[in-house]
Amino acid sequence: MDGDVLVLAQKIVSKAEGRLVNLNQVTPSQRALELAAITQKDARFVELVLSESAEVLRVRVNTLIVQHRLGFVCANAGIDHSNVHGDWGADEDWVLLLPEDPDRSAQKLREQMRERYGCDVGVMIIDSHGRAWRTGTVGVAIGIAGVPGLVDLRGVPDLFGFQLRITQVGAADELAAAASLVMGQAAEGTPVVHVRGFPYALRDSKLAELIREKSLDLFR
Amino acid sequence: MDGDVLVLAQKIVSKAEGRLVNLNQVTPSQRALELAAITQKDARFVELVLSESAEVLRVRVNTLIVQHRLGFVCANAGIDHSNVHGDWGADEDWVLLLPEDPDRSAQKLREQMRERYGCDVGVMIIDSHGRAWRTGTVGVAIGIAGVPGLVDLRGVPDLFGFQLRITQVGAADELAAAASLVMGQAAEGTPVVHVRGFPYALRDSKLAELIREKSLDLFR
Repeated sequence: MDGDVLVLAQKIVSKAEGRLVNLNQVTPSQRALELAAITQKDARFVELVLSESAEVLRVRVNTLIVQHRLGFVCANAGIDHSNVHGDWGADEDWVLLLPEDPDRSAQKLREQMRERYGCDVGVMIIDSHGRAWRTGTVGVAIGIAGVPGLVDLRGVPDLFGFQLRITQVGAADELAAAASLVMGQAAEGTPVVHVRGFPYALRDSKLAELIREKSLDLFR
Repeated sequence: MDGDVLVLAQKIVSKAEGRLVNLNQVTPSQRALELAAITQKDARFVELVLSESAEVLRVRVNTLIVQHRLGFVCANAGIDHSNVHGDWGADEDWVLLLPEDPDRSAQKLREQMRERYGCDVGVMIIDSHGRAWRTGTVGVAIGIAGVPGLVDLRGVPDLFGFQLRITQVGAADELAAAASLVMGQAAEGTPVVHVRGFPYALRDSKLAELIREKSLDLFR
Protein backbone atom coordinates (compact mmCIF):
# COMPACT_ATOMS: atom_id res chain seq x y z
CA MET A 1 0.00 0.00 0.00
CA ASP A 2 1.07 3.60 -0.44
CA GLY A 3 3.10 4.59 2.63
CA ASP A 4 4.31 1.06 3.41
CA VAL A 5 8.03 0.53 3.95
CA LEU A 6 10.18 -2.46 3.03
CA VAL A 7 13.21 -2.87 5.27
CA LEU A 8 16.01 -5.09 3.94
CA ALA A 9 18.94 -6.59 5.83
CA GLN A 10 22.23 -5.31 4.42
CA LYS A 11 23.46 -8.84 3.92
CA ILE A 12 20.98 -9.91 1.28
CA VAL A 13 21.45 -6.70 -0.68
CA SER A 14 25.23 -7.04 -0.55
CA LYS A 15 25.09 -10.66 -1.69
CA ALA A 16 22.67 -9.82 -4.51
CA GLU A 17 25.06 -7.14 -5.64
CA GLY A 18 28.05 -9.45 -5.67
CA ARG A 19 29.98 -7.74 -2.90
CA LEU A 20 31.73 -10.92 -1.82
CA VAL A 21 35.51 -10.64 -1.83
CA ASN A 22 38.00 -13.45 -1.33
CA LEU A 23 40.79 -12.43 1.03
CA ASN A 24 43.22 -14.38 -1.12
CA GLN A 25 42.78 -11.68 -3.76
CA VAL A 26 43.83 -8.92 -1.32
CA THR A 27 47.38 -7.68 -0.76
CA PRO A 28 47.70 -5.73 2.48
CA SER A 29 49.39 -2.33 2.41
CA GLN A 30 51.97 -1.24 4.95
CA ARG A 31 49.29 0.65 6.89
CA ALA A 32 47.06 -2.43 6.93
CA LEU A 33 49.92 -4.51 8.29
CA GLU A 34 50.49 -1.96 11.07
CA LEU A 35 46.81 -1.84 12.04
CA ALA A 36 46.56 -5.62 11.83
CA ALA A 37 49.40 -5.92 14.34
CA ILE A 38 47.56 -3.65 16.80
CA THR A 39 44.08 -5.08 16.30
CA GLN A 40 45.20 -8.71 15.87
CA LYS A 41 42.98 -8.96 12.81
CA ASP A 42 43.83 -10.48 9.41
CA ALA A 43 45.89 -7.86 7.52
CA ARG A 44 43.99 -8.62 4.29
CA PHE A 45 40.72 -7.96 6.10
CA VAL A 46 42.14 -4.71 7.49
CA GLU A 47 43.18 -3.72 3.96
CA LEU A 48 39.58 -4.09 2.80
CA VAL A 49 38.36 -2.09 5.81
CA LEU A 50 40.76 0.70 4.86
CA SER A 51 39.64 0.61 1.23
CA GLU A 52 36.03 1.09 2.41
CA SER A 53 36.83 3.86 4.91
CA ALA A 54 37.25 7.61 4.82
CA GLU A 55 39.01 7.79 8.18
CA VAL A 56 40.21 5.51 10.96
CA LEU A 57 38.85 6.73 14.31
CA ARG A 58 39.89 4.18 16.96
CA VAL A 59 42.29 1.24 16.95
CA ARG A 60 42.60 -1.28 19.81
CA VAL A 61 43.00 -5.02 20.19
CA ASN A 62 40.02 -6.55 18.37
CA THR A 63 38.61 -3.07 17.63
CA LEU A 64 38.79 -1.03 14.43
CA ILE A 65 36.30 1.82 14.29
CA VAL A 66 36.16 3.90 11.13
CA GLN A 67 34.15 6.45 9.30
CA HIS A 68 32.87 4.48 6.33
CA ARG A 69 33.20 6.11 2.89
CA LEU A 70 29.38 6.28 2.99
CA GLY A 71 29.63 8.65 5.97
CA PHE A 72 28.57 6.68 9.02
CA VAL A 73 30.83 5.52 11.84
CA CYS A 74 30.99 1.78 12.49
CA ALA A 75 33.30 -1.11 13.28
CA ASN A 76 35.27 -2.82 10.47
CA ALA A 77 33.59 -0.66 7.80
CA GLY A 78 30.61 -2.98 8.13
CA ILE A 79 32.49 -5.82 6.47
CA ASP A 80 31.06 -9.17 7.43
CA HIS A 81 33.31 -12.12 8.08
CA SER A 82 30.81 -14.47 9.67
CA ASN A 83 28.35 -16.38 7.54
CA VAL A 84 29.03 -15.11 4.07
CA HIS A 85 30.28 -18.52 3.05
CA GLY A 86 26.81 -20.03 3.02
CA ASP A 87 26.42 -19.93 -0.71
CA TRP A 88 30.01 -20.77 -1.45
CA GLY A 89 30.97 -23.60 0.84
CA ALA A 90 32.65 -23.13 4.18
CA ASP A 91 35.52 -21.04 2.94
CA GLU A 92 36.81 -18.83 5.71
CA ASP A 93 38.40 -16.47 3.21
CA TRP A 94 35.22 -14.92 1.85
CA VAL A 95 34.03 -11.64 3.31
CA LEU A 96 31.09 -9.42 2.40
CA LEU A 97 31.37 -5.66 1.83
CA LEU A 98 28.42 -3.29 2.24
CA PRO A 99 26.50 -2.39 -0.92
CA GLU A 100 28.39 0.07 -3.07
CA ASP A 101 25.65 2.72 -2.80
CA PRO A 102 22.84 1.65 -0.46
CA ASP A 103 20.79 4.81 -1.15
CA ARG A 104 20.85 3.94 -4.86
CA SER A 105 20.00 0.30 -4.18
CA ALA A 106 17.02 1.39 -2.07
CA GLN A 107 15.93 3.91 -4.68
CA LYS A 108 16.02 1.28 -7.44
CA LEU A 109 13.87 -1.08 -5.42
CA ARG A 110 11.48 1.76 -4.65
CA GLU A 111 11.11 2.51 -8.34
CA GLN A 112 10.62 -1.15 -9.20
CA MET A 113 7.90 -1.47 -6.57
CA ARG A 114 6.17 1.57 -8.02
CA GLU A 115 6.35 0.18 -11.55
CA ARG A 116 5.26 -3.30 -10.63
CA TYR A 117 2.57 -2.56 -8.05
CA GLY A 118 1.66 1.06 -8.75
CA CYS A 119 2.15 2.18 -5.18
CA ASP A 120 4.57 4.48 -3.42
CA VAL A 121 6.51 2.53 -0.80
CA GLY A 122 9.64 3.48 1.11
CA VAL A 123 12.67 1.19 1.00
CA MET A 124 15.41 1.03 3.56
CA ILE A 125 18.58 -1.05 3.97
CA ILE A 126 19.74 -1.59 7.55
CA ASP A 127 22.69 -2.95 9.45
CA SER A 128 23.49 -3.37 13.16
CA HIS A 129 25.93 -0.87 14.65
CA GLY A 130 27.49 -0.42 18.04
CA ARG A 131 27.15 2.92 19.77
CA ALA A 132 29.36 5.29 21.71
CA TRP A 133 28.47 5.24 25.42
CA ARG A 134 26.01 2.34 25.30
CA THR A 135 26.63 -1.37 24.93
CA GLY A 136 24.86 -3.62 22.45
CA THR A 137 24.16 -3.15 18.78
CA VAL A 138 21.01 -1.62 17.34
CA GLY A 139 19.61 -1.59 13.83
CA VAL A 140 20.37 1.61 11.89
CA ALA A 141 19.69 2.74 8.37
CA ILE A 142 22.57 2.57 5.87
CA GLY A 143 20.49 3.44 2.80
CA ILE A 144 17.06 5.03 2.44
CA ALA A 145 14.62 5.92 -0.31
CA GLY A 146 11.28 7.47 0.49
CA VAL A 147 11.68 6.95 4.24
CA PRO A 148 12.50 10.29 5.88
CA GLY A 149 15.85 10.14 7.65
CA LEU A 150 15.00 13.02 9.92
CA VAL A 151 11.56 14.35 10.78
CA ASP A 152 11.71 17.97 11.80
CA LEU A 153 9.32 18.78 14.62
CA ARG A 154 10.48 22.32 15.24
CA GLY A 155 7.43 24.48 15.58
CA VAL A 156 5.09 21.54 16.10
CA PRO A 157 3.11 22.12 19.29
CA ASP A 158 2.83 19.36 21.84
CA LEU A 159 -0.30 18.17 23.58
CA PHE A 160 -0.51 21.32 25.70
CA GLY A 161 0.29 23.77 22.92
CA PHE A 162 3.88 24.39 23.89
CA GLN A 163 6.98 24.09 21.72
CA LEU A 164 8.75 20.77 21.77
CA ARG A 165 12.11 20.07 23.35
CA ILE A 166 12.93 17.42 20.77
CA THR A 167 13.41 19.03 17.40
CA GLN A 168 14.55 16.37 14.97
CA VAL A 169 13.59 12.72 15.26
CA GLY A 170 15.82 10.13 13.60
CA ALA A 171 12.73 8.47 12.16
CA ALA A 172 14.51 6.10 9.77
CA ASP A 173 16.80 4.88 12.54
CA GLU A 174 13.86 4.30 14.90
CA LEU A 175 12.24 2.20 12.19
CA ALA A 176 15.55 0.42 11.54
CA ALA A 177 15.77 -0.60 15.20
CA ALA A 178 12.17 -1.79 15.15
CA ALA A 179 12.75 -3.84 12.00
CA SER A 180 15.97 -5.25 13.43
CA LEU A 181 13.98 -6.64 16.38
CA VAL A 182 11.66 -8.42 13.96
CA MET A 183 14.51 -9.75 11.81
CA GLY A 184 16.50 -11.12 14.72
CA GLN A 185 20.22 -11.71 14.41
CA ALA A 186 20.57 -15.45 14.37
CA ALA A 187 18.88 -18.26 12.49
CA GLU A 188 15.51 -16.57 12.06
CA GLY A 189 16.04 -15.96 8.37
CA THR A 190 13.81 -12.89 8.07
CA PRO A 191 15.84 -10.62 5.80
CA VAL A 192 12.95 -8.36 4.75
CA VAL A 193 10.38 -6.69 6.98
CA HIS A 194 7.19 -5.26 5.54
CA VAL A 195 6.11 -2.24 7.61
CA ARG A 196 2.58 -0.92 7.58
CA GLY A 197 1.58 2.15 9.61
CA PHE A 198 4.87 4.05 9.62
CA PRO A 199 3.67 7.29 11.21
CA TYR A 200 5.52 9.81 9.05
CA ALA A 201 4.92 10.81 5.44
CA LEU A 202 7.23 9.41 2.78
CA ARG A 203 9.36 11.85 0.79
CA ASP A 204 12.58 11.74 -1.23
CA SER A 205 15.46 11.14 1.17
CA LYS A 206 19.17 10.38 1.46
CA LEU A 207 21.12 8.74 4.26
CA ALA A 208 23.28 11.88 4.47
CA GLU A 209 20.47 13.47 6.51
CA LEU A 210 21.37 11.12 9.35
CA ILE A 211 25.11 11.70 9.30
CA ARG A 212 26.42 14.36 11.65
CA GLU A 213 28.78 16.66 9.83
CA LYS A 214 32.32 16.15 11.06
CA SER A 215 32.73 19.79 12.09
CA LEU A 216 29.61 19.50 14.27
CA ASP A 217 30.52 16.13 15.77
CA LEU A 218 31.76 16.57 19.32
CA PHE A 219 32.59 12.89 19.84
CA ARG A 220 35.19 11.76 17.33
CA MET B 1 -0.18 -11.73 28.59
CA ASP B 2 3.03 -13.26 29.88
CA GLY B 3 5.91 -11.83 27.85
CA ASP B 4 4.16 -8.58 26.94
CA VAL B 5 6.01 -5.33 27.57
CA LEU B 6 4.65 -1.95 28.66
CA VAL B 7 6.76 0.97 27.47
CA LEU B 8 6.20 4.28 29.27
CA ALA B 9 7.31 7.73 28.21
CA GLN B 10 9.67 9.24 30.77
CA LYS B 11 7.53 12.31 31.08
CA ILE B 12 4.46 10.66 32.58
CA VAL B 13 6.54 8.70 35.07
CA SER B 14 8.44 11.81 36.12
CA LYS B 15 5.23 13.79 36.55
CA ALA B 16 3.60 10.99 38.53
CA GLU B 17 6.63 10.95 40.82
CA GLY B 18 6.54 14.68 41.43
CA ARG B 19 9.82 15.50 39.72
CA LEU B 20 8.71 19.01 38.77
CA VAL B 21 11.05 21.72 40.04
CA ASN B 22 10.47 25.46 39.92
CA LEU B 23 13.58 27.31 38.80
CA ASN B 24 12.75 30.06 41.28
CA GLN B 25 13.73 27.62 44.03
CA VAL B 26 17.20 27.06 42.52
CA THR B 27 20.33 29.07 43.34
CA PRO B 28 23.05 28.61 40.74
CA SER B 29 26.55 27.74 41.87
CA GLN B 30 29.67 29.42 40.51
CA ARG B 31 30.21 26.49 38.14
CA ALA B 32 26.63 26.73 36.90
CA LEU B 33 27.09 30.44 36.20
CA GLU B 34 30.24 29.71 34.22
CA LEU B 35 28.59 26.98 32.14
CA ALA B 36 25.50 29.14 31.66
CA ALA B 37 27.68 31.86 30.18
CA ILE B 38 29.16 29.43 27.66
CA THR B 39 25.94 27.59 26.79
CA GLN B 40 23.68 30.65 26.98
CA LYS B 41 21.26 28.64 29.07
CA ASP B 42 19.48 29.72 32.27
CA ALA B 43 22.02 29.35 35.12
CA ARG B 44 19.34 27.88 37.40
CA PHE B 45 18.59 25.26 34.75
CA VAL B 46 22.32 24.52 34.44
CA GLU B 47 22.51 24.13 38.22
CA LEU B 48 19.83 21.45 38.07
CA VAL B 49 21.64 19.73 35.20
CA LEU B 50 24.81 19.64 37.30
CA SER B 51 22.93 18.29 40.30
CA GLU B 52 21.67 15.41 38.13
CA SER B 53 25.02 14.68 36.48
CA ALA B 54 28.10 12.64 37.30
CA GLU B 55 30.31 14.38 34.75
CA VAL B 56 30.13 17.17 32.19
CA LEU B 57 31.37 15.88 28.81
CA ARG B 58 30.88 18.71 26.27
CA VAL B 59 29.98 22.38 26.59
CA ARG B 60 29.15 24.62 23.63
CA VAL B 61 26.66 27.35 22.82
CA ASN B 62 23.24 25.76 23.33
CA THR B 63 24.84 22.39 24.10
CA LEU B 64 25.47 20.75 27.45
CA ILE B 65 26.19 17.02 27.24
CA VAL B 66 26.69 15.12 30.47
CA GLN B 67 26.91 11.70 31.94
CA HIS B 68 23.74 11.48 33.98
CA ARG B 69 24.06 10.18 37.55
CA LEU B 70 22.07 7.18 36.25
CA GLY B 71 24.99 6.36 33.93
CA PHE B 72 23.86 7.24 30.42
CA VAL B 73 25.16 10.15 28.33
CA CYS B 74 22.60 12.73 27.20
CA ALA B 75 21.96 16.44 26.74
CA ASN B 76 20.86 18.54 29.73
CA ALA B 77 20.69 15.50 32.03
CA GLY B 78 17.36 14.75 30.38
CA ILE B 79 15.72 17.71 32.09
CA ASP B 80 12.66 18.87 30.21
CA HIS B 81 11.91 22.54 29.86
CA SER B 82 9.23 22.42 27.18
CA ASN B 83 5.71 21.40 28.06
CA VAL B 84 5.91 20.55 31.71
CA HIS B 85 3.66 23.48 32.52
CA GLY B 86 0.57 21.76 31.17
CA ASP B 87 -0.79 20.81 34.54
CA TRP B 88 0.34 23.96 36.25
CA GLY B 89 -0.53 26.83 33.96
CA ALA B 90 1.87 28.35 31.47
CA ASP B 91 4.66 28.97 33.92
CA GLU B 92 7.98 29.02 32.11
CA ASP B 93 9.84 28.38 35.34
CA TRP B 94 8.81 24.77 35.85
CA VAL B 95 11.11 22.03 34.62
CA LEU B 96 10.86 18.26 34.88
CA LEU B 97 13.70 16.00 36.08
CA LEU B 98 13.99 12.34 35.13
CA PRO B 99 12.58 9.81 37.60
CA GLU B 100 14.83 9.36 40.61
CA ASP B 101 15.40 5.66 39.89
CA PRO B 102 13.77 4.54 36.64
CA ASP B 103 14.79 0.89 37.11
CA ARG B 104 12.98 0.92 40.45
CA SER B 105 9.94 2.64 38.96
CA ALA B 106 9.78 0.03 36.21
CA GLN B 107 10.23 -2.79 38.70
CA LYS B 108 7.39 -1.49 40.89
CA LEU B 109 5.04 -1.35 37.93
CA ARG B 110 6.11 -4.82 36.89
CA GLU B 111 5.29 -6.18 40.34
CA GLN B 112 1.95 -4.37 40.41
CA MET B 113 1.03 -5.84 37.02
CA ARG B 114 1.91 -9.29 38.29
CA GLU B 115 -0.19 -8.84 41.43
CA ARG B 116 -3.14 -7.33 39.66
CA TYR B 117 -3.27 -9.44 36.50
CA GLY B 118 -1.26 -12.52 37.43
CA CYS B 119 1.03 -12.29 34.44
CA ASP B 120 4.70 -11.61 33.94
CA VAL B 121 5.16 -8.50 31.82
CA GLY B 122 8.24 -6.40 31.18
CA VAL B 123 8.17 -2.67 31.91
CA MET B 124 10.42 -0.08 30.37
CA ILE B 125 10.75 3.70 30.69
CA ILE B 126 12.12 5.48 27.64
CA ASP B 127 13.37 8.91 26.61
CA SER B 128 14.69 10.37 23.33
CA HIS B 129 18.44 10.87 23.13
CA GLY B 130 20.76 12.33 20.53
CA ARG B 131 23.67 10.23 19.32
CA ALA B 132 27.35 10.75 18.62
CA TRP B 133 28.02 10.68 14.86
CA ARG B 134 24.38 10.58 13.72
CA THR B 135 21.78 13.35 13.69
CA GLY B 136 18.27 13.02 15.06
CA THR B 137 17.05 11.63 18.34
CA VAL B 138 15.97 8.04 18.91
CA GLY B 139 14.08 6.40 21.74
CA VAL B 140 16.31 4.66 24.29
CA ALA B 141 15.67 2.85 27.54
CA ILE B 142 16.35 4.76 30.77
CA GLY B 143 14.84 2.16 33.10
CA ILE B 144 14.03 -1.51 32.59
CA ALA B 145 12.44 -4.37 34.51
CA GLY B 146 12.02 -7.76 32.93
CA VAL B 147 13.05 -6.54 29.50
CA PRO B 148 16.58 -7.74 28.74
CA GLY B 149 18.91 -4.82 28.13
CA LEU B 150 21.37 -6.93 26.20
CA VAL B 151 20.74 -10.23 24.51
CA ASP B 152 23.90 -12.23 24.17
CA LEU B 153 24.09 -14.12 20.89
CA ARG B 154 27.65 -15.35 21.22
CA GLY B 155 27.70 -18.98 20.27
CA VAL B 156 24.30 -18.85 18.56
CA PRO B 157 24.67 -20.18 15.04
CA ASP B 158 23.24 -18.26 12.13
CA LEU B 159 21.12 -19.64 9.32
CA PHE B 160 24.09 -21.43 7.75
CA GLY B 161 25.52 -22.80 10.96
CA PHE B 162 28.33 -20.27 11.34
CA GLN B 163 29.14 -18.11 14.32
CA LEU B 164 27.59 -14.66 14.34
CA ARG B 165 29.44 -11.39 13.82
CA ILE B 166 27.06 -9.55 16.11
CA THR B 167 27.49 -10.71 19.65
CA GLN B 168 25.29 -8.57 21.86
CA VAL B 169 22.07 -6.96 20.71
CA GLY B 170 20.81 -3.89 22.57
CA ALA B 171 17.35 -5.43 22.66
CA ALA B 172 15.77 -2.96 25.10
CA ASP B 173 17.02 -0.03 23.04
CA GLU B 174 15.69 -1.52 19.82
CA LEU B 175 12.31 -1.88 21.50
CA ALA B 176 12.59 1.67 22.88
CA ALA B 177 13.12 3.05 19.37
CA ALA B 178 10.17 1.05 18.07
CA ALA B 179 7.93 2.30 20.88
CA SER B 180 9.12 5.86 20.35
CA LEU B 181 7.89 5.68 16.74
CA VAL B 182 4.46 4.66 17.97
CA MET B 183 4.34 7.31 20.69
CA GLY B 184 5.36 10.15 18.40
CA GLN B 185 6.89 13.31 19.79
CA ALA B 186 4.21 15.91 19.35
CA ALA B 187 0.51 16.09 20.14
CA GLU B 188 -0.21 12.39 19.71
CA GLY B 189 -0.64 11.83 23.41
CA THR B 190 0.37 8.16 23.46
CA PRO B 191 2.49 7.92 26.60
CA VAL B 192 2.26 4.14 27.00
CA VAL B 193 2.80 1.48 24.35
CA HIS B 194 1.65 -2.09 24.91
CA VAL B 195 4.01 -4.47 23.10
CA ARG B 196 3.04 -8.01 22.18
CA GLY B 197 5.44 -10.37 20.46
CA PHE B 198 8.74 -9.06 21.81
CA PRO B 199 11.06 -11.76 20.44
CA TYR B 200 13.33 -12.26 23.45
CA ALA B 201 12.59 -13.92 26.78
CA LEU B 202 11.96 -11.71 29.79
CA ARG B 203 14.38 -11.92 32.72
CA ASP B 204 15.44 -9.71 35.62
CA SER B 205 17.36 -6.77 34.23
CA LYS B 206 18.97 -3.42 35.01
CA LEU B 207 19.72 -0.45 32.78
CA ALA B 208 23.38 -0.75 33.78
CA GLU B 209 23.69 -3.57 31.22
CA LEU B 210 23.31 -0.98 28.48
CA ILE B 211 25.85 1.51 29.82
CA ARG B 212 29.35 1.21 28.47
CA GLU B 213 31.85 1.29 31.30
CA LYS B 214 33.85 4.51 31.20
CA SER B 215 37.19 2.70 30.96
CA LEU B 216 35.92 0.83 27.86
CA ASP B 217 34.33 3.88 26.23
CA LEU B 218 36.51 5.11 23.38
CA PHE B 219 34.35 8.12 22.58
CA ARG B 220 34.13 10.42 25.60
